[in-house]
Amino acid sequence: MRVSRLMLNTLRDVPSEAEIISHQLLIRAGFIKRITSGIYAYMPLLWKVLEKITRIVKEEMNNKDALQTLLPQLHPADLWKESGRWQGYTAGEGIMFNLKDRQNRELGLGPTHEEVITKIASETLNSYKQLPVTLYQIQTKFRDEIRPRFGLMRSREFIMKDAYSFHKDEKDLKLKYKEMDSAYRNIFKRCGLKTVAVEADSGAIGGSASQEFMVTADAGEDYILISSDGMYAANQEKAISKYSEPIELNIKATKTIETPNQNSINELCLKQQLDPSQVVKVILMIGILENNIKQPLLISIRGDQELNEVKLINFLTTELNQTVLEVSPITKEELSKEGLKPFAFGSIGPDLSDSVLRGSSTWKQNFLRVVDFSAAELSNFVCGSNQINLHKVGVSWDSVGGLAKKIDLRKAQAGDRCVHDETQILKECRGIEVGHIFQLGCKYSKKLKATFTNEKGNEEPFWMGCYGIGISRLAQAAIEQNNDNSGIIWPIEISPFEVIITVANMEDESQRNLGEKLYEDLKIQNIDVLIDDRNERAGIKFKDADLIGIPLRIVVGRDSVSGKVELFQRSTKETMLIDKEQAIKEIIKKINSKRS
Amino acid sequence: MRVSRLMLNTLRDVPSEAEIISHQLLIRAGFIKRITSGIYAYMPLLWKVLEKITRIVKEEMNNKDALQTLLPQLHPADLWKESGRWQGYTAGEGIMFNLKDRQNRELGLGPTHEEVITKIASETLNSYKQLPVTLYQIQTKFRDEIRPRFGLMRSREFIMKDAYSFHKDEKDLKLKYKEMDSAYRNIFKRCGLKTVAVEADSGAIGGSASQEFMVTADAGEDYILISSDGMYAANQEKAISKYSEPIELNIKATKTIETPNQNSINELCLKQQLDPSQVVKVILMIGILENNIKQPLLISIRGDQELNEVKLINFLTTELNQTVLEVSPITKEELSKEGLKPFAFGSIGPDLSDSVLRGSSTWKQNFLRVVDFSAAELSNFVCGSNQINLHKVGVSWDSVGGLAKKIDLRKAQAGDRCVHDETQILKECRGIEVGHIFQLGCKYSKKLKATFTNEKGNEEPFWMGCYGIGISRLAQAAIEQNNDNSGIIWPIEISPFEVIITVANMEDESQRNLGEKLYEDLKIQNIDVLIDDRNERAGIKFKDADLIGIPLRIVVGRDSVSGKVELFQRSTKETMLIDKEQAIKEIIKKINSKRS
Repeated sequence: MRVSRLMLNTLRDVPSEAEIISHQLLIRAGFIKRITSGIYAYMPLLWKVLEKITRIVKEEMNNKDALQTLLPQLHPADLWKESGRWQGYTAGEGIMFNLKDRQNRELGLGPTHEEVITKIASETLNSYKQLPVTLYQIQTKFRDEIRPRFGLMRSREFIMKDAYSFHKDEKDLKLKYKEMDSAYRNIFKRCGLKTVAVEADSGAIGGSASQEFMVTADAGEDYILISSDGMYAANQEKAISKYSEPIELNIKATKTIETPNQNSINELCLKQQLDPSQVVKVILMIGILENNIKQPLLISIRGDQELNEVKLINFLTTELNQTVLEVSPITKEELSKEGLKPFAFGSIGPDLSDSVLRGSSTWKQNFLRVVDFSAAELSNFVCGSNQINLHKVGVSWDSVGGLAKKIDLRKAQAGDRCVHDETQILKECRGIEVGHIFQLGCKYSKKLKATFTNEKGNEEPFWMGCYGIGISRLAQAAIEQNNDNSGIIWPIEISPFEVIITVANMEDESQRNLGEKLYEDLKIQNIDVLIDDRNERAGIKFKDADLIGIPLRIVVGRDSVSGKVELFQRSTKETMLIDKEQAIKEIIKKINSKRS
Repeated sequence: MRVSRLMLNTLRDVPSEAEIISHQLLIRAGFIKRITSGIYAYMPLLWKVLEKITRIVKEEMNNKDALQTLLPQLHPADLWKESGRWQGYTAGEGIMFNLKDRQNRELGLGPTHEEVITKIASETLNSYKQLPVTLYQIQTKFRDEIRPRFGLMRSREFIMKDAYSFHKDEKDLKLKYKEMDSAYRNIFKRCGLKTVAVEADSGAIGGSASQEFMVTADAGEDYILISSDGMYAANQEKAISKYSEPIELNIKATKTIETPNQNSINELCLKQQLDPSQVVKVILMIGILENNIKQPLLISIRGDQELNEVKLINFLTTELNQTVLEVSPITKEELSKEGLKPFAFGSIGPDLSDSVLRGSSTWKQNFLRVVDFSAAELSNFVCGSNQINLHKVGVSWDSVGGLAKKIDLRKAQAGDRCVHDETQILKECRGIEVGHIFQLGCKYSKKLKATFTNEKGNEEPFWMGCYGIGISRLAQAAIEQNNDNSGIIWPIEISPFEVIITVANMEDESQRNLGEKLYEDLKIQNIDVLIDDRNERAGIKFKDADLIGIPLRIVVGRDSVSGKVELFQRSTKETMLIDKEQAIKEIIKKINSKRS
């Protein structure tokens, strides 16, 4: 390919709308064009990257006997109603675009395909003899993001590889899950990326176990916690850890103390000479459920711990057997809307009476009460008294109405000790999720009544797994992990071109001829090569080559008369002045070591 | 690939919802699964066909220096409002799915990408030096069809290759158009299809010239008219022809005749001993325009000719410079809704007065009058008198208020004489449109102000072309053209597998071993081979192999002990009993002759 025919359009200035470096570089190097918020055109250079990633993904999927397919992007609402996900995905914070067709039938734009594939399996797979089967597709998916940002990282249209497997039992599912784990590790390695596999929350997809693959990068939106020995790694949403020992509270007798303007744990501890681990903090929230019930929540947690909302939502979903559309803090404004008197915010205790909810217009009139393990194990603590500016010290759970349901609701943090080995400490890093594999179990097959006939002749629901890779996101994550001040540094495995030939001066016949000769020679060798044949100054060509990130560069300049060229390596900035034949040999050597 | 792992699911019965053979076979052979009206999942066997078609399309596009890209499927309404197509595509009979996102912004689901690509070109291509550029993509498109049917032929989601070219002048556009014409002929030939290229109407896409590529098949939805010498072929929507000479009317003096119950041309001619070519027929219609104007139309045409609505709509669009949302006949019911008195239907003449429209509630109060050439050239004719049961004979145009605008509005028909050579007669056949190429000219670049700097330093709008292929439709059209009572007969070039090895009895060790040996040998030879390793009766396996349409079959049966197998050709039903080595040689020979 010739740069003159490439529709290249590079920018020197950093685009103001792009916050992170990979997004800036995608725009500056002309890989994407924004069409509207969170929606981009993939330009020819990016398309070549996506094709290379896709080829690797397909090879690894085919190696695991997965069959390629293509499922619709428009999904009938009825299917999602059957699985119970329609409302959760379209109401409140639900991210599914939806519309009505000319017959006024509701359709959703698929963000994921469990419903569709399960319906197909139920109509196609009848017997255990046909199992296991894995199907995959590579396709544009849609999410009506609340806040689209970071270019292809959180866009409203994106390319996914999603695979779904069907099994006769859990054992077989676990085998495939392990195979997919290995395929995923191969894929990311073959793409030239550094990734880490972490335990993950299964979120709206559900199921019993799941694992994410993270490209480590400072701009990642996900917090990862990793033990120093590397034996444990988890997304913070999912991570567990040991909390620190609380500091014993010496005041044993229960008494009420005045705490004016001490409305936060910090203020209270500062003024009262307390440690936050001696205080039980109460968090009041309202959970909006799919069945329209608005459930007030009273959560007790130790003063030095933070609430993990994902754990809370997972608990509510199971406990109430309902999709949770939203959880949000109870505020004065919300109380007033409900026609309720203000609570003693800043001094709330675990025994806040349900009577404060009496007469509310839309809420349930009793709290669902839970207590985090960290707070539950305190035997003598400080807490609010439910009266403004008054707290109680020397409190036991018995004296505040007893313990509510004990569950794990706290956020694990960097510095915490590990559960698998208390001598290990959790470290924090950030990551970009590029893959996620799930053991779904029978969640969807039961809901959609998708069954097969087992060895004994009985109908049984399929055991299912699902396995996703964000193809377009992966391309950007590669940039986030591989760049410098001059631009992108593509891993050679997924670079739009492996080599660029920069002819310093196209008007110099000897340079032009040598450049063209090398171009033809490399094409014959099956090297993916680009030649910068523009009538531009050499400096501009070097800047563009750096920016678009081609890993190997041959500079054809003044030494071309003696048959010598410069071989430049983008990542190390190493330069060699060598014979043109030698340059071709070096390039083939470097590329072959990376090709699989 | 092994049939046992293929998720094969064939049906013996013809599915009741499928009207045409290709749709029936797609379902019966398990190539597609219906998800909802007009929306299908592409199963692994079909996916392989689509991949093979795609590879051919990509190679031919790349050969013409087209750059692959991927554009968004969600389009902001603003862009389509700028081009003036939003309302036409979303209101009335408009086929664009549309929705509002969480910020309440309107989006359409792309049925075509002129707007998006023109915006990108305007931001990326600045100078004539960068031209010409051709971009293409292969992607799922959407159409909210009024009546989805025929499987993938008229579905609501379908895969298209669409390409767009940008040029500095019309001459360069015409060169690319010719190149694309040649690429398209290569593509269809390489797919093993018989197609015909026909002049076509440009429809909602617009532009000055366009050509369709039709797979000839009786179930095609398009009528094609072809001259006996093959020099002229056109879609009936677009076709032109010479109309027959009218039979002279002998009655010269103008008089009014009573014509009770002679409300149709046929009845009138029968009772009055007239020939339809002696009568001027008047058709009254109402055209609904994008600017909400409802324009009454009075169309005069010769009694033996039919109105071509596509020609009418094209005329109105140009004449009124407005998108036409709909044209429909004026009926008694419509008149009553408008608060107008009934017209003298059955006896309407060209001089029907505008006064009949006076007081209408939403229509314009004057007719737009046009006359087809066939009627315009009559000097002495019969027509309605605008009074019930009365016609006039011996009429001249002067006596009915003069000639309105003369245009070509008639349908060309099989049997008509050709314009290019009057000795040639038009024949009719049916076709399935699989490709369409357009010279768009500056239609979109002008509307969207997409310009480049020309050699003289002036800003000029791009000259554009656009070029589409229906990839998924092509797959089905191939079946419509290639099938028999037993099932599909894939052209080997796009067959999901080139060869199937049918092991008659898997429990026979010698058969099983020979089958597996051949399977491995063919894979090594890079043949796309399927082995039917199921524990099923041979008859079932043969039926399935016939149904799914694999062009070459090796049957490993009783003769396997002597190393002999049957080589069966699906299309000719020829069978050869030959040595296994010979079978491999034959297969390689047959396949190589088809590979490109």
